[in-house]
Amino acid sequence: MLRNLNPLLTPDLLHALRSMGHGDEIALVDGNFPAETNAQRLIRLDGLAATEVLQAVLSVMPLDTYVACPAFRMSVVNEPDAQPEICTEFQSIINSVADVPAELGQIERFAFYERVQSCFAIVATGENRLYGNIILTKGVIKPGD
Amino acid sequence: MLRNLNPLLTPDLLHALRSMGHGDEIALVDGNFPAETNAQRLIRLDGLAATEVLQAVLSVMPLDTYVACPAFRMSVVNEPDAQPEICTEFQSIINSVADVPAELGQIERFAFYERVQSCFAIVATGENRLYGNIILTKGVIKPGD
Repeated sequence: MLRNLNPLLTPDLLHALRSMGHGDEIALVDGNFPAETNAQRLIRLDGLAATEVLQAVLSVMPLDTYVACPAFRMSVVNEPDAQPEICTEFQSIINSVADVPAELGQIERFAFYERVQSCFAIVATGENRLYGNIILTKGVIKPGD
Repeated sequence: MLRNLNPLLTPDLLHALRSMGHGDEIALVDGNFPAETNAQRLIRLDGLAATEVLQAVLSVMPLDTYVACPAFRMSVVNEPDAQPEICTEFQSIINSVADVPAELGQIERFAFYERVQSCFAIVATGENRLYGNIILTKGVIKPGD
């Protein structure tokens, strides 16, 4: 373990987050998500909730302020207005941990899969709640930050 | 780059530091050191001073408190009492950045090479000052740290 670093930031997850540049995206996905099939780089965090992992990731990763929305969830199939409880939790974690304010956007299921395929990395969590998936866009660290 | 992390902590260096456990050692070596020959894992940080890299490493890595000395330098050949200026700098950095107080020990040149061979990783810096080498032993993060 390391000083002042959330212990869920494993060697491989830290490596990916530090390798990513501005505009690169990372997806945290639930236990049902086809992670292996869609990943350019796969990091497994089985047994952990997506909410715990989101907290760890946002503790070090800046969110992009150059895009309209740096955080996306998957829309509920056939219920575009529904907001699963886990997505409300995602929003609270963003509010309390992220470096900048951001409102969680949403993307239709198959567009979400497509977006995940272009992500720098996927973190396969053990989240068992449905719709426990989120895509984050990396921002910049400015001189003096 | 990442929030609250020294940017000299590259993906590979972070990966190594986070992979190391209690008692594992890492060597930061100067530009003249036979790093490639002696490394189990080699991380290159050419162009950087060993002192800069030491500062970055100690900002996240706890030092071992279960050994007499968790930080060693190489003794000056034929002058065991000499303390090169860069080693005085190493000591100041430990004093100001490490999580625990530690007095820099020293090991004779060939014993130092041998010890480096058993290190988890070597960081080859671009340090051009002679004797710009240091071995650090990783400590523990206790619950609540």
